[in-house]
Amino acid sequence: MKKLIIAISALCIGLSASAQQALWGGPSVDSPVINADGTVTFRFQAPKAVKVEVTGDFLPTQKVEVEFGGNKMTFDAPGVRELKEGQGGVWEYTTDFPVAPDMYNYTFRVDGVSQIDPHNMWVNRDVASLTSVLLVPAPGERSDLFAIHRVPHGTVSKVWYSSPTAGFDRRLTVYTPAGYETSKAKYPVLYVLHGIGGDEDAWVTQGRATQILDNLIARGEAKPMIVVFTNGNISQEAAPGENSTGYVNPTMQLPQTMEGTFETAFPEIVKFIDSRYRTVARKASRAVCGLSMGGFHTLYLSLNYPELFGWSGMFSAAIGVNDTSVSPIYQDFDAKLAKYYAAKPSLLWIGCGNTDFLWQANLDFKKKLEDNGYKFTFMETEGGHIWKNWRIYLTEFVPLLFR
Amino acid sequence: MKKLIIAISALCIGLSASAQQALWGGPSVDSPVINADGTVTFRFQAPKAVKVEVTGDFLPTQKVEVEFGGNKMTFDAPGVRELKEGQGGVWEYTTDFPVAPDMYNYTFRVDGVSQIDPHNMWVNRDVASLTSVLLVPAPGERSDLFAIHRVPHGTVSKVWYSSPTAGFDRRLTVYTPAGYETSKAKYPVLYVLHGIGGDEDAWVTQGRATQILDNLIARGEAKPMIVVFTNGNISQEAAPGENSTGYVNPTMQLPQTMEGTFETAFPEIVKFIDSRYRTVARKASRAVCGLSMGGFHTLYLSLNYPELFGWSGMFSAAIGVNDTSVSPIYQDFDAKLAKYYAAKPSLLWIGCGNTDFLWQANLDFKKKLEDNGYKFTFMETEGGHIWKNWRIYLTEFVPLLFR
Repeated sequence: MKKLIIAISALCIGLSASAQQALWGGPSVDSPVINADGTVTFRFQAPKAVKVEVTGDFLPTQKVEVEFGGNKMTFDAPGVRELKEGQGGVWEYTTDFPVAPDMYNYTFRVDGVSQIDPHNMWVNRDVASLTSVLLVPAPGERSDLFAIHRVPHGTVSKVWYSSPTAGFDRRLTVYTPAGYETSKAKYPVLYVLHGIGGDEDAWVTQGRATQILDNLIARGEAKPMIVVFTNGNISQEAAPGENSTGYVNPTMQLPQTMEGTFETAFPEIVKFIDSRYRTVARKASRAVCGLSMGGFHTLYLSLNYPELFGWSGMFSAAIGVNDTSVSPIYQDFDAKLAKYYAAKPSLLWIGCGNTDFLWQANLDFKKKLEDNGYKFTFMETEGGHIWKNWRIYLTEFVPLLFR
Repeated sequence: MKKLIIAISALCIGLSASAQQALWGGPSVDSPVINADGTVTFRFQAPKAVKVEVTGDFLPTQKVEVEFGGNKMTFDAPGVRELKEGQGGVWEYTTDFPVAPDMYNYTFRVDGVSQIDPHNMWVNRDVASLTSVLLVPAPGERSDLFAIHRVPHGTVSKVWYSSPTAGFDRRLTVYTPAGYETSKAKYPVLYVLHGIGGDEDAWVTQGRATQILDNLIARGEAKPMIVVFTNGNISQEAAPGENSTGYVNPTMQLPQTMEGTFETAFPEIVKFIDSRYRTVARKASRAVCGLSMGGFHTLYLSLNYPELFGWSGMFSAAIGVNDTSVSPIYQDFDAKLAKYYAAKPSLLWIGCGNTDFLWQANLDFKKKLEDNGYKFTFMETEGGHIWKNWRIYLTEFVPLLFR
């Protein structure tokens, strides 16, 4: 048996220097650690640093004023806490409160420069930044839906479709529920759209959407459904690093975003999905939802294709940002809204945080619907324009569908 | 139009503080940059650091001696170079040589502590370490196979199967070639196995296997095939972060690794794939290959199931590490080898780097095959036990299959 053990050690040695370092190098740094009392300890090794901070949405927010293009805007930014240096240049901070069960993003700031936690392998990309992830799940809490459980798992696929509008193949993430492959049944379809700077990966990484679907379906709280995560940047084949332009770092504003082309081309995607998968290809079995820009897309997809989608979910939707002159998609709003309601949608669901910079725009839209006697569901949450809210909205919206 | 632009800016502001920082905060740091002369510049911002280095497999290797369990071992570690501090605490290093077209991993060391490049969104996990990725592709070079091109793309799926041996569902990565879904044809299957510390994601992230397959098939240099990336740690449901134990950081040595259970249970996977996909379910259309521990698994899968696999590829295989007493899978080696060759395999392919710590073990195995007059293909490459070699072997092995 000794021969086996030595040889396996040799295998380890054969790996890259960085892998070895993680095994043997330096002091053992555990971070993040959820303590027995519910507090969380963060650690970062930086022997020569003068100041190390941690920031993330597990901390209470703080008001920040930003000037941009002559406009002063106030928004809620994640709080910041200083770490204290200990032995071996390992800095440490423990929250003075139990961290509520939820999924959080955090980063360190080392002398003002943002760094992920090198001892936490769970890293998400948020547009052009990397963040470390902390998940505090608890039975009975919503965050338990974000964890992986021993329940039947759906299949998550990266699938390419040919877009005549774009002139090239484009990538989708497609979730088929557990049992799809061995069943002959047809399934309803939910289309889920990301925000500005996002792509077809965002809802899966940041949104935990496939875990939420697995868990809700396993509990019997959602109908088994196909879920399609689109890429809303029509000028892009796929997420950064997954397209033929090479690994260009992502930017917020891509060409042809929020100018109508994506919405105009959307039926291409629906046609592809209905031909590739066993779908119930009718309005009552087709839903669309999205966050921020994706909520904006959801609104205009719903208004422009009243016969396509029976169920719509606008999450912190970027309402009121459009110039009607850029595309016919955005014109004749009131007439389209009337036509949409005349076609009897099953559900228009709206969720927004009450400190979101889009809160007032969503309230204005709510009032317009009320003034016209149009039916809708409205959910107000704490907090702003963050993934924590979008995950909440998805867990609320999905159980309502296809009933 | 002004309203639209301001509102989109507002959308940006609404995102997390870290996303904003990447947009507006601090000096603009571009890293890595491939310069016109083929050199590469690396930059890292650390205002208070005393020493910043970069290490990676783009640098010539250096000999490192490690003592472990009383044994002194020498191996080739990636080279290390110091960066020089410039304005705004931004450190910089430019190679004094053009970096050859290939895919590389690199990390910074800030006062001895490993850090990824925060300005490069392309991050891979290598066991328990994060590394930044640099791809230098060039037409006509092998590394062009690692890049994404506008060719038909296969579908890449995360699929769960039920393992009676493990007693729970386990996760596979499955590649179906472009055209699979719209065809009625049956396809041959290649099983691809990872090394110790790896999982069903490793070949897709570090190995660029699905890009290699897309490109080879599009060029007509490989037959369209289904490719299945297994998880060789039978005690594990799925990759770290993708299983129900929560986000436990990965370790090298898991229970039940290289003790026969994975190989004993392997027919479960073959049975699942043959029932779920349109496969040609016969030896001549079934291949297996793997790196390091996966090469070891490949060897024993081939020897124990001579009627299952017609094509076998051992990449830097961990030959000779097993204790025959741990499992019948590893017993009667010579008799099984004779039986394997009597059953007329189509190909036994062996690749190893000539500075790999497993080089001698592979030479010994080569000699055994030669002494017995057994046919095989052998490829010697420069370098050691690294992904750079395993990507080479995959690009060499795949075109030979199913001819």
